[in-house]
Amino acid sequence: MPRMTILTEADLRKIVRLDLDAVAAVENAFRALATEAVAMPPILRLDIPEHRGEVDVKTAYVPGIDGFAIKISPGFFDNPKLGLPSLNGMMVLLSSKTGLVEALLLDNGYLTDIRTAAAGAVAAKHLSRSDSSVAAIIGAGVQARLQLEALKLVRPIETARIWARDAGKALQAASDLSEKLGIKVEAASDVARAVAGADIIVTTTPATEPIIKAEHLAPGQHLTAMGSDSEHKNEIAPAAITHADLYVADSAKQTRRLGELHHAIAAGLINADADTAELGAVVAGKIAGRLSARDLTIADLTGTGVQDTAIATLARDRARTVGAGTPFES
Amino acid sequence: MPRMTILTEADLRKIVRLDLDAVAAVENAFRALATEAVAMPPILRLDIPEHRGEVDVKTAYVPGIDGFAIKISPGFFDNPKLGLPSLNGMMVLLSSKTGLVEALLLDNGYLTDIRTAAAGAVAAKHLSRSDSSVAAIIGAGVQARLQLEALKLVRPIETARIWARDAGKALQAASDLSEKLGIKVEAASDVARAVAGADIIVTTTPATEPIIKAEHLAPGQHLTAMGSDSEHKNEIAPAAITHADLYVADSAKQTRRLGELHHAIAAGLINADADTAELGAVVAGKIAGRLSARDLTIADLTGTGVQDTAIATLARDRARTVGAGTPFES
Repeated sequence: MPRMTILTEADLRKIVRLDLDAVAAVENAFRALATEAVAMPPILRLDIPEHRGEVDVKTAYVPGIDGFAIKISPGFFDNPKLGLPSLNGMMVLLSSKTGLVEALLLDNGYLTDIRTAAAGAVAAKHLSRSDSSVAAIIGAGVQARLQLEALKLVRPIETARIWARDAGKALQAASDLSEKLGIKVEAASDVARAVAGADIIVTTTPATEPIIKAEHLAPGQHLTAMGSDSEHKNEIAPAAITHADLYVADSAKQTRRLGELHHAIAAGLINADADTAELGAVVAGKIAGRLSARDLTIADLTGTGVQDTAIATLARDRARTVGAGTPFES
Repeated sequence: MPRMTILTEADLRKIVRLDLDAVAAVENAFRALATEAVAMPPILRLDIPEHRGEVDVKTAYVPGIDGFAIKISPGFFDNPKLGLPSLNGMMVLLSSKTGLVEALLLDNGYLTDIRTAAAGAVAAKHLSRSDSSVAAIIGAGVQARLQLEALKLVRPIETARIWARDAGKALQAASDLSEKLGIKVEAASDVARAVAGADIIVTTTPATEPIIKAEHLAPGQHLTAMGSDSEHKNEIAPAAITHADLYVADSAKQTRRLGELHHAIAAGLINADADTAELGAVVAGKIAGRLSARDLTIADLTGTGVQDTAIATLARDRARTVGAGTPFES
């Protein structure tokens, strides 16, 4: 009769937040990716075109972490017509030692939001200038908001600009974030104005045509692209990628196939088998990150199974400590 | 707040049994595999060598079935030292229309046992002689027992012989099955005696060296190999495969990689890109099965995601009808 704990989204929102612990957990996972024999199989992908549906299943085993997550992420894009959210999801946390299910994390995508934002913090911590005080956020959704919060955890952000295709949403996000974070956040009227003079830029959109062009970028900036998690998405112009002093992937294998890098390769600007720096190697100190205050750096984050394993084990540990969730035997 | 139903192994044992409904559900799934635009991505496989652990994740979408299963199957082979079973597992049933989780089936592998046995019945129904009355079962584990039960659902089995490496286990299984099924079941002293004169032979072992040789087999017999679900497993000698009048795979893509066929290809006896008959095509009447009472037929079953989707939706439907399980919101 294996015993497991079931944690609902409400349980998880109470015990896991976007904080320095979440950032440290994700940072450790990236470090392990560069230093340990991490097993991270290719994403399992199922398409259901009749209902504009897709499901991704990701997993990763990190030596030294006693659990591993299997994450199920459905996206069904006709759901809004039915009054349901397009994105959903849950994670199953298994023991790395016995394979027994330890926890069912019915998070509806919440933990993914947190670990994605935490990766933005890790990228900024290791690639942006330590005196970065001005942020530009492209997009005004859940992840746009979380990314600004994440930056504030690792850099002395004082002002931020938000640009989104829907100006009303950008205004609302700016107002909400001003109040929540106690810093000056303004909506920008165009991308160029949002980005000019920013120390850190984060793109969080589902764009399929580049929003950030090479001419938008200036020496000393750091850019993190979060939006591209499938072949057709594209936020950063290929010329901007080659323009950077340093390009860093979360997983080179993935960004060559899914990320911004994929479009630079398709445009013939980068060789498909060129060596590609990875965030974990920078975190681990195996390769240099930013070399000078004038470097332009880019992080291309497509989302990795190690992040899921990191956040899911953090959730289980917190749940154990405070006795959260519903125990269940089967 | 999506609402789902949680079904434990105990719940599932009450509502899903190895019966003609389970066989029909799996038979329909195989038919769909040959006639519908089924989506069945390659199995996601994670290995954790430190703990002799492996996890397979399978899924399949079958048009016309309103749910699809994602099955998580861990095998951790040091577990018995800890007093735990090696094999475990659970399924998540999602709506094909919205991607929402409808049910968590905490079956500890029970539904896999049932759908695997049901596939044996489907193979026997479509490939063995309809007057088959003598069965030979190789192996004495859970699946060996279920396979004999499955054969009895579709063929007039009167006597059975069981051979297993451990003679004591074979005797025990024979005695248990005699009593349970009300037919004559005996333990055989060797493979040749078990198989001689049998109408249907089913192999259910984790063997890594062939148990069934070409010389064991005779015209008119049907052989189903259930044991091979990974590269290193091998129950049937390559020469026995080429000796058969008809070889049928559950999924040619899988048996070329994992099944008995894989070893015949490796031995150079079969061309890797040779046309391979599939069980679904026989069920659907798209290709002929057995042509005469003297044909020797072989079914190579590695286990497919469509079977999981079939049994998981059957479980959910039964649970709805009788109000089984625990509702849960998240």
